[in-house]
Amino acid sequence: MDLISLAAAAKKASRSVRTLTNEIRSKVLREFAYGLVENADTIIEANALDLSEAEANGMSKAMLDRLMLNQSRIDQIAEGVLQVEQLEDPLNRVLEERVLASGVHLKKISSAIGVIGIIFESRPNVTADCAALCFKSGNTCVLKGGKESYRSCKAIVDVMKAALIKNDVTPDAVMLAEKPSHEETAEFMKCREYVDLLIPRGSSRLIQAVVQNAKVPVIETGAGICHTFVDESADFEMAKKIIINAKCSRPSVCNAMETLLVHEKIAGTFVPMIAEVMKEHGVLIYGNPETCKLVSEAREGNETNWATEYDDLIMNLVIVKDVNEAIDHIETYGTHHSDCIVTENEESKEAFFRGIDSACLYHNASTRFTDGFEFGLGAEIGISTQKLHARGPMGLRELTTYLYQIEGKGEIR
Amino acid sequence: MDLISLAAAAKKASRSVRTLTNEIRSKVLREFAYGLVENADTIIEANALDLSEAEANGMSKAMLDRLMLNQSRIDQIAEGVLQVEQLEDPLNRVLEERVLASGVHLKKISSAIGVIGIIFESRPNVTADCAALCFKSGNTCVLKGGKESYRSCKAIVDVMKAALIKNDVTPDAVMLAEKPSHEETAEFMKCREYVDLLIPRGSSRLIQAVVQNAKVPVIETGAGICHTFVDESADFEMAKKIIINAKCSRPSVCNAMETLLVHEKIAGTFVPMIAEVMKEHGVLIYGNPETCKLVSEAREGNETNWATEYDDLIMNLVIVKDVNEAIDHIETYGTHHSDCIVTENEESKEAFFRGIDSACLYHNASTRFTDGFEFGLGAEIGISTQKLHARGPMGLRELTTYLYQIEGKGEIR
Repeated sequence: MDLISLAAAAKKASRSVRTLTNEIRSKVLREFAYGLVENADTIIEANALDLSEAEANGMSKAMLDRLMLNQSRIDQIAEGVLQVEQLEDPLNRVLEERVLASGVHLKKISSAIGVIGIIFESRPNVTADCAALCFKSGNTCVLKGGKESYRSCKAIVDVMKAALIKNDVTPDAVMLAEKPSHEETAEFMKCREYVDLLIPRGSSRLIQAVVQNAKVPVIETGAGICHTFVDESADFEMAKKIIINAKCSRPSVCNAMETLLVHEKIAGTFVPMIAEVMKEHGVLIYGNPETCKLVSEAREGNETNWATEYDDLIMNLVIVKDVNEAIDHIETYGTHHSDCIVTENEESKEAFFRGIDSACLYHNASTRFTDGFEFGLGAEIGISTQKLHARGPMGLRELTTYLYQIEGKGEIR
Repeated sequence: MDLISLAAAAKKASRSVRTLTNEIRSKVLREFAYGLVENADTIIEANALDLSEAEANGMSKAMLDRLMLNQSRIDQIAEGVLQVEQLEDPLNRVLEERVLASGVHLKKISSAIGVIGIIFESRPNVTADCAALCFKSGNTCVLKGGKESYRSCKAIVDVMKAALIKNDVTPDAVMLAEKPSHEETAEFMKCREYVDLLIPRGSSRLIQAVVQNAKVPVIETGAGICHTFVDESADFEMAKKIIINAKCSRPSVCNAMETLLVHEKIAGTFVPMIAEVMKEHGVLIYGNPETCKLVSEAREGNETNWATEYDDLIMNLVIVKDVNEAIDHIETYGTHHSDCIVTENEESKEAFFRGIDSACLYHNASTRFTDGFEFGLGAEIGISTQKLHARGPMGLRELTTYLYQIEGKGEIR
């Protein structure tokens, strides 16, 4: 089936899936999880074919590792599905309720969005994560992964479809694209008739391609140029601990720090100290001229550096005049993801929180906390860096919309 | 200034406007309202020039009436601004608050979206409404109206800018496009760098043009093919009252009924009765074959009729087998705006509420209630017929987003 036909089928399926009880949705997800473990051999066989083809095509070792599935990874995927299953039902929550002046009774109720298109790269676990999150929130989904992981994704989706069928739910609730052409994918991204929302997951190149080509509403996720600003009054030990965590605990993720800003009044002592610590952690530093005067190993950075998401053991270290210059820097070069101020001064904190328009603002804590699990949302489908619909970590509730139910006794206007 | 430069200036202005206190925002809006009344003569003069030019260009009487401003209409516009001013501040509301497992304290707080682009046709009052709603919600706006109302809109925006300047707020908070070219408008709709949200207001042709050409997120508003289904067990008098109200009280608005669906079991008595009532109200009826057998004056309708928003004293009258066929009809031909069931049967109501995915579902009340004022939102900027971000009537809260503020004592992950 071509991608538009898959989307049309998912749209049709969404009419029944959005009304399934939480009990049935949970039952399907439990059987999906058990099925993954039971069918691990089949999935690993399919994955082996993907892997050998990818290797023959010259895929890098790092990418091959992302593509690879083994027993323990499949167990983890199943565990993730069970975690989603156990989350609170995001549907049919009464968000507001009131009697209007006219006498009618109004309820605002959470409901499914409809068809969610997920466009991702080669990690097959995304298939199971997204299928579980979309289904638990009453949505149907069309999954379009990279060609190189098709067999692995198909083996996973087959398990989900078996769980759906076993519970008398249409298997069209979860659709996997069958290696569509570039043109087919482009048409899919414009197909407002059948697709309600597109979520691209992966590199910023992928995300921008979707944003630029879609006519279906898109939620942009991921791009994170996160900052930490160390204010004049900061506790140096606390700042050091936060910076090491934000930069080094997992440099490849979007909530990792890319740029450290330091108040000029403390730069003379703090900057050489932190540069030494970063060197010990193998971090390469790009600085502004003031930094380079204090740190001999620092390379001279420029605007291109300040606007780069390194996703690696590389960082910018920029000395600024005060909190206002820090705010200007962040508003100019940041991606409105997660930004932190380390300070003991309440006024500086307030200026920072007021002046910066990012999804997550931190005071004296690592930006690495920007995460659905950490925020208590359960699993997350991504971290939104846009402002419409959802911002920051997106969990099940962010995969719902709402509608109004109005009950009367013959009222007219 | 070209439209992109206006948007860039609005973006810059949004950094300070989003942090203004509610007191200042209210003060500006009060002075805007008083200024409109004080400068009514100037506005009427500007409007007279627009009117004479439009008349010379052959504008229809109905359109000229929409364009026309007089003292009483300006008083109404000022009154509307004061109503917006008095609404609860939508910013800085604590939406959620909790201590996370890591010990950090998280607050989810409502905040401004940024720059809102409003694309509308020739009604100059939209200028004042949108300027007031955007400013009250901490957003800056770029208003692009029809060329034929430019002088009137400019006179209104000049009053707003004077009120801003008087309160030391940047006049760039409200920007009016200066008769931009088609190409300039197209570029504006793609300008994600400076524009956070586009709201088209007007005909469905205008709205679709924006949806199809924009890369900036759009909120679709307005298109309403609303249905009323009269079930087997309906109270006929109640149904009659609701139908007259839904169709005839203001046929040109989006929440007016376009299609009446009637259960076949009661069609024999109800359909001729309601057809007679509709005839008295001057309503032309398109029916399906079953209807045409019962109503001699009904014209034979088809799928094109079922999918038409008449905005006029014309309606479809379709006899259906049961509530499920009614649901199928609505899901097939509706626009997910507002749909009503008239029934005394709880099961039918539940099937209808479960089966229909519209912004507003009514039981025994007129669809005409779908409106920001009626819903208690205060003024509205439009009625969203899409599912992302906001659905149904959009008031001040729907013009905000949120961000997370996280405070710690040196916590790391």
